[in-house]
Amino acid sequence: MGMDYRKAGVDIATLDRIKKRMSRAVKRTFTENVVTEFGHFGGGFRLKGYRKPVLVASTDNIGTKAKVARLAGIYNTIGADLVNHSSNDIMCTGATPLFILDYLAFTKLDADYIARIVEGFAKACKKEKVVLIGGETAQLPGVHKPGDFDLSATVVGAIEEGKLIDGSSIKPGDVAIGLRSTGLHTNGYSLARKVLLEGNAPLPMDALVPGTKKTVGQALLAVHRSYRKEVEAVKPLLKGIAHITGGGFRGNISRILPDDLDCVIERKRWKPLPIFKLIQERGNVTDTEAYRVFNMGIGMVLFVRSKDAEEVREKTRGILIGRIVKGKGKVHPA
Amino acid sequence: MGMDYRKAGVDIATLDRIKKRMSRAVKRTFTENVVTEFGHFGGGFRLKGYRKPVLVASTDNIGTKAKVARLAGIYNTIGADLVNHSSNDIMCTGATPLFILDYLAFTKLDADYIARIVEGFAKACKKEKVVLIGGETAQLPGVHKPGDFDLSATVVGAIEEGKLIDGSSIKPGDVAIGLRSTGLHTNGYSLARKVLLEGNAPLPMDALVPGTKKTVGQALLAVHRSYRKEVEAVKPLLKGIAHITGGGFRGNISRILPDDLDCVIERKRWKPLPIFKLIQERGNVTDTEAYRVFNMGIGMVLFVRSKDAEEVREKTRGILIGRIVKGKGKVHPA
Repeated sequence: MGMDYRKAGVDIATLDRIKKRMSRAVKRTFTENVVTEFGHFGGGFRLKGYRKPVLVASTDNIGTKAKVARLAGIYNTIGADLVNHSSNDIMCTGATPLFILDYLAFTKLDADYIARIVEGFAKACKKEKVVLIGGETAQLPGVHKPGDFDLSATVVGAIEEGKLIDGSSIKPGDVAIGLRSTGLHTNGYSLARKVLLEGNAPLPMDALVPGTKKTVGQALLAVHRSYRKEVEAVKPLLKGIAHITGGGFRGNISRILPDDLDCVIERKRWKPLPIFKLIQERGNVTDTEAYRVFNMGIGMVLFVRSKDAEEVREKTRGILIGRIVKGKGKVHPA
Repeated sequence: MGMDYRKAGVDIATLDRIKKRMSRAVKRTFTENVVTEFGHFGGGFRLKGYRKPVLVASTDNIGTKAKVARLAGIYNTIGADLVNHSSNDIMCTGATPLFILDYLAFTKLDADYIARIVEGFAKACKKEKVVLIGGETAQLPGVHKPGDFDLSATVVGAIEEGKLIDGSSIKPGDVAIGLRSTGLHTNGYSLARKVLLEGNAPLPMDALVPGTKKTVGQALLAVHRSYRKEVEAVKPLLKGIAHITGGGFRGNISRILPDDLDCVIERKRWKPLPIFKLIQERGNVTDTEAYRVFNMGIGMVLFVRSKDAEEVREKTRGILIGRIVKGKGKVHPA
């Protein structure tokens, strides 16, 4: 008997069946701006309404939140995590997300969970009005551990050239408005898993997070919040936007902070979510490390003039968490 | 001692160092159209010179060619594989590739090979005039097998709305011009590895491919050819373009072939590359399977009017390999 692709670990026929199922979900995200058929070599999107368009793109992944999803057997929400994560990222430039492409890689093909991931992804696209214009579903025999998978995505948006928001107009006296996160969002899962779910006495996924009615599984899989509505509501007032992902306040605010300014974050202005407290206590994780890895309850930070603070706070239901002072591009406390 | 990200398997400090090294390579791909700084939340690209722009995007990966690269210890060429693979894909719509984002995921951090992969990727971008506008380098503890990694990318291009090439104007009597491939390009590696490099008597990477002066390693890692120059040289004459990737002639030509036409490929018009012969012989792989998995020596197929065939053949150094007849959207031989 000869060798074929299937025996080598790649099941094209099943992949084709899954793709058919996916295509229905994908097409539901299409708008009149999609000019190509599903399955063409490239997805075509008509760019309309811009005079001097700047395209803004970002690639993100869900990290090892994928492993938590697998452990919980919940596959339909991680797509939303990634759609929102990616969209939030490019919104930090002021851009409006237009379309996205997903990339799903795995070693062992399980038709059902693969389809559920992509269907969840497509549903989130529809909700966020981002067209799922393309993607790749790749079976890579021998690369991932059996059952493990990796989900990433690239989102593309656009903005008028003169309207880019990049932090350069931030001045001393400006303030930072924090928007609440729903949990870890999409960062810090390797540390969270190590502390909560591994070692000698791992917590069961259905253990309650102290002080809440949520299980550990629910808290860890809480969907990455989209800040689209909040950002759109106050966009003309925004001088800088930082999405608090891997690297925490320091790592992310410094991406847009001018070199001659510092940002002082007043941690007492909000209470970190209980899941962070649990991770810190169980893992003996210092504040310094926790604020470097996690968002600690604030998923996005908007920089505005102090005279606009009240309006922005109100319209976004945000919290005044910090202020800008002269400095050297640092975020305090470190 | 408390738990931290490093003990959980994520080495942020080393990642930061690698990113600094990468940033130099990345910035070399920048043109005056890049409007954001390296490290912002999204990469900004000024879209100029289009009246009614259609953006065309595609996500691709290098499959388990990554495993062959690892086996050979050659990390600097797989970036070019992916840049060319992705660019070829969107060129099938007639679009000009503008910018690209890479995604590199792995479990175990080896600073040197990670940097070499991205540097190779950036070098290929520079060569192909595609800006490396962003990307993600993700350490995912426990997801990939140690030492394994996965490289994917998303490319975005643009074209004037009326100039899209989608195969819809292909008519009976039109012909197919094939452009030679350099090897497997980026598809069929799971089968090739199984047949050549695994099992009881794996071939050493430095064994010669019969009838050539190339080693198995060299033949397997031959860089995916970019067809940019060839496509640009004859673009106004092209009615359809098919990039021959996973799925072979049938899987890819059918993506652009109108439902009421068939494409007849005359396999005797060219000689498959020796590496394919070796795989077929060693693995007892049937022609049907081989032509379904591999490109068999033809990496791109251009569809043109028969009266333009000679000009296109000459300008692209292509081979007349097939013709269009009335039918049902099938490719023969199956």
